[in-house]
Amino acid sequence: MAFEFELLATDGRARAGILHTPHGDIPTPIFAPVGTQATVKAVPPRDLHEIGASLVLANTYHLYLRPGDELISEMGGLHRFMAWDGPILTDSGGFQVFSLAQINKIDDQGVTFRSHIDGSQHRLTPEKSVQVQENLGADIIMAFDQCPLPTDRSIVEKAVARTNAWAARCREAHPDDTVQALFGIQQGGIFEDLREQSSIALRALDFPGYAIGGLAVGETKPQMYAALDYAVPMLPQDKPRYLMGVGAPDDLVNSVLRGVDMFDCVMPTRIARHGAAFTPYGTTNLRNLEHARAETQIDDTCSCYCCQNFSRAYLRHLVKSGELLGHFLLSVHNIRFLLRHMEQMRQAIFQGALRDYADAFLARYLQNL
Amino acid sequence: MAFEFELLATDGRARAGILHTPHGDIPTPIFAPVGTQATVKAVPPRDLHEIGASLVLANTYHLYLRPGDELISEMGGLHRFMAWDGPILTDSGGFQVFSLAQINKIDDQGVTFRSHIDGSQHRLTPEKSVQVQENLGADIIMAFDQCPLPTDRSIVEKAVARTNAWAARCREAHPDDTVQALFGIQQGGIFEDLREQSSIALRALDFPGYAIGGLAVGETKPQMYAALDYAVPMLPQDKPRYLMGVGAPDDLVNSVLRGVDMFDCVMPTRIARHGAAFTPYGTTNLRNLEHARAETQIDDTCSCYCCQNFSRAYLRHLVKSGELLGHFLLSVHNIRFLLRHMEQMRQAIFQGALRDYADAFLARYLQNL
Repeated sequence: MAFEFELLATDGRARAGILHTPHGDIPTPIFAPVGTQATVKAVPPRDLHEIGASLVLANTYHLYLRPGDELISEMGGLHRFMAWDGPILTDSGGFQVFSLAQINKIDDQGVTFRSHIDGSQHRLTPEKSVQVQENLGADIIMAFDQCPLPTDRSIVEKAVARTNAWAARCREAHPDDTVQALFGIQQGGIFEDLREQSSIALRALDFPGYAIGGLAVGETKPQMYAALDYAVPMLPQDKPRYLMGVGAPDDLVNSVLRGVDMFDCVMPTRIARHGAAFTPYGTTNLRNLEHARAETQIDDTCSCYCCQNFSRAYLRHLVKSGELLGHFLLSVHNIRFLLRHMEQMRQAIFQGALRDYADAFLARYLQNL
Repeated sequence: MAFEFELLATDGRARAGILHTPHGDIPTPIFAPVGTQATVKAVPPRDLHEIGASLVLANTYHLYLRPGDELISEMGGLHRFMAWDGPILTDSGGFQVFSLAQINKIDDQGVTFRSHIDGSQHRLTPEKSVQVQENLGADIIMAFDQCPLPTDRSIVEKAVARTNAWAARCREAHPDDTVQALFGIQQGGIFEDLREQSSIALRALDFPGYAIGGLAVGETKPQMYAALDYAVPMLPQDKPRYLMGVGAPDDLVNSVLRGVDMFDCVMPTRIARHGAAFTPYGTTNLRNLEHARAETQIDDTCSCYCCQNFSRAYLRHLVKSGELLGHFLLSVHNIRFLLRHMEQMRQAIFQGALRDYADAFLARYLQNL
C-alpha cells in the first residue's frame, strides 16, 4: 500500500514514525513549508531538497483560481509543474475561501465566493474541492471544511456539523486512497465535547490521516495547548495527526509533546520577507542596528547555505536595501531551522528524551520574551 | 604579476584572451553580471558559479552610500562580504552620481551631490573614488570619469578634458596595480577626434586596462557601432578593452567583432524582473498568452537550472502571480544565455569563425524585429 503510517517509537504522547507516500517517505514528526502558489516563496526546489524538506504544502484555493487546476493537470500535475518530486499536500481551499475571498453565500451544499484576484464568482463544494485536488495531484489531499474562530460556541457547533457532513461527501467522492490519501479535518474550536463529536464522525469514515483544524486562528497559546491535550487523543493512534497552520518553534515542540505528527505554516518564509530569522535564542530582525557590523552568521550551529556563507552584517545590508537575495537566504535558513528542530525532536523521541529537549529548547528560545 | 592579459587568438579585430587576477582567471571576451548593491539581484553566488560567471561588477556609488565602504572594509572586503570568491570589478561612481543623484555642484575638483536614498550630502573626487574602491577591495577598479550624453560636442569636449585630468589624479592616487588594477576610461561620445584626444592622454598613464565609456547612453545602435569602429583601435592592443554598460545580445557580438573584450550590463537581471527572457529567437515575455500551456522550457539548448527543470507555463504562472522564484529563475537563465553567447564567441574566435557565428546568431536573434 502506497500510504502507510509506521509508528516507530513513542515518548509519552509524542510519536516518531514514517508516512510512506507515492513520492517518498515522510519522517514524522515533520514540518511542511508552504508553497501557496506552487512555489515556496523565493526558494527553488533544489534548495528545499538540500535543507531536508520532505513534504511541501500547496493551496488549492490559490491554484484553482490561478493558473487553474485543469491547466496544472494538463501540464502533468503539481509535482511536474513545480518541479518538486517529493510528497505534496494540498489543503481543501476551505480556509482561504473563508479568510481571503469575499463570501457571497454559505449553505449546506457549499460556498459561493468572489476571487480576491479579479472578483470573478466561483463555487466550492466538497465534491468540487476533491475534484480540484485530484486535478492538482498532490499525495495528500484534505476534506473540505468550515474553519470558524474557535471561541464562539454557537458558530463552532454549526461548523462542526457542516464539516462532518462535508467530510462524508468528500469520502464518497474520493473513496480510494491508493494514489492520493484523503485526510479528514477535526473541528470543534476550544470545546472538548465538540472536538469529540467531530472525531466520532470522522473516525467512522476511516481516513488514512486526520488533521486538527480550527486552532492557531485567534485563541491564546495556553488555549491551543489545552485543546490539544484533549483533541489529539481523540484521533486514532495508528494514523498520522496533522495540526494545520502551526509553525512557531515553541508551538511545534509543545504540539509534538501532545502527540501531533505533522505541521505546516507560512511563518518561516513570511518572517523572512520581513527581515526576521529564527535563532536558538528567539527570532531576531536583521534590520536591528546590533547586526550592522556582525561578522557572525545567524546561527553558528546551522548548516544551511545562508549560515555557511553570509554574515549578519551582509544580511542586514540586503534587508535594508530591499534586495531579493535576502528573501531567499532568510527563507532557506528559517525553513532549515524548523526542519532541524523537527529532526532533533524525532531523535529525542527515539531516545525517550523529548521532555529534556523541549525544556532546553524552550528555555533558550523563550529567554528574551 | 597578478594582473596579466594574455592575448591568445585574434579573428579580424576580435580577440580571445585571459585576464589573470588575484581572484582567478577571466576568459575574454567576457560578460560580467551586475551586482549593484553587492548582490546580483535574486541570484546566489553559488548559482553564478554554476552558470559559469567569472567576473562580477558592483557599484561604488551604491555601496559607498549603503552600507558604506568602511563597513565593507571592516567586514573583510567585498569578496568576503558578498561571498563571491571570483574576480570583482567596481565602477568609479561617476556614472551613478550623474544619473541617480541630485547634483549640487560639479567643478574640476569633483562632484557634490545628494544621496538618492536619504538626501544626505556627499562629495566624490577622483581621490575619494579611488579610496572608496580600495576599501571595497575589488580586483579591477575604475578611474573617476564624467560621462555625458554622447552627441552634444561642446559638453563632450569638456567631459573629455575633465576625465583626462581626473584619470591622472586617480593614477597618482593608485600607482600600484599589484593588488587592484586601475582601468582608465576613454570618453569622447561619438566624436572621433575627442576619442583620440582621450586615448592619447590615457595611454600616457599606462593603465593595465581601458574602458570605453559614454556609449549606450542615448545614441543609436549604428552610431555606437560606428564609434567603436574608430574608438577601439585607439586603445593598446596588449591590454583588455571594456565597453561599459552594454549587454544586449546583438550589441555584444557586434562589439566583440570590433575588438572589445569585456562587458557589463544590468539587462539580463532587469528584464527578468519584468518577466522577460532571452531566447535564440529574440526576447520573449513570459506573460504572453502563447506560453500559458507551453510544456517546453525557455530554450531547449540551454543547460541552466531554469531550462533543465521548468516549463514556460510554470514560469508564466510565477510571473503573473508576482512570485519571487520567477525573478531567480529568469535571472539565472538570462545571465547563462549571455555567458554562453560569450563562450561561443570565444570558441569561434579560436576557430577563425566569428563572422559566421555572428551572422547566424544575428539572423536568428533579430528575425522577429
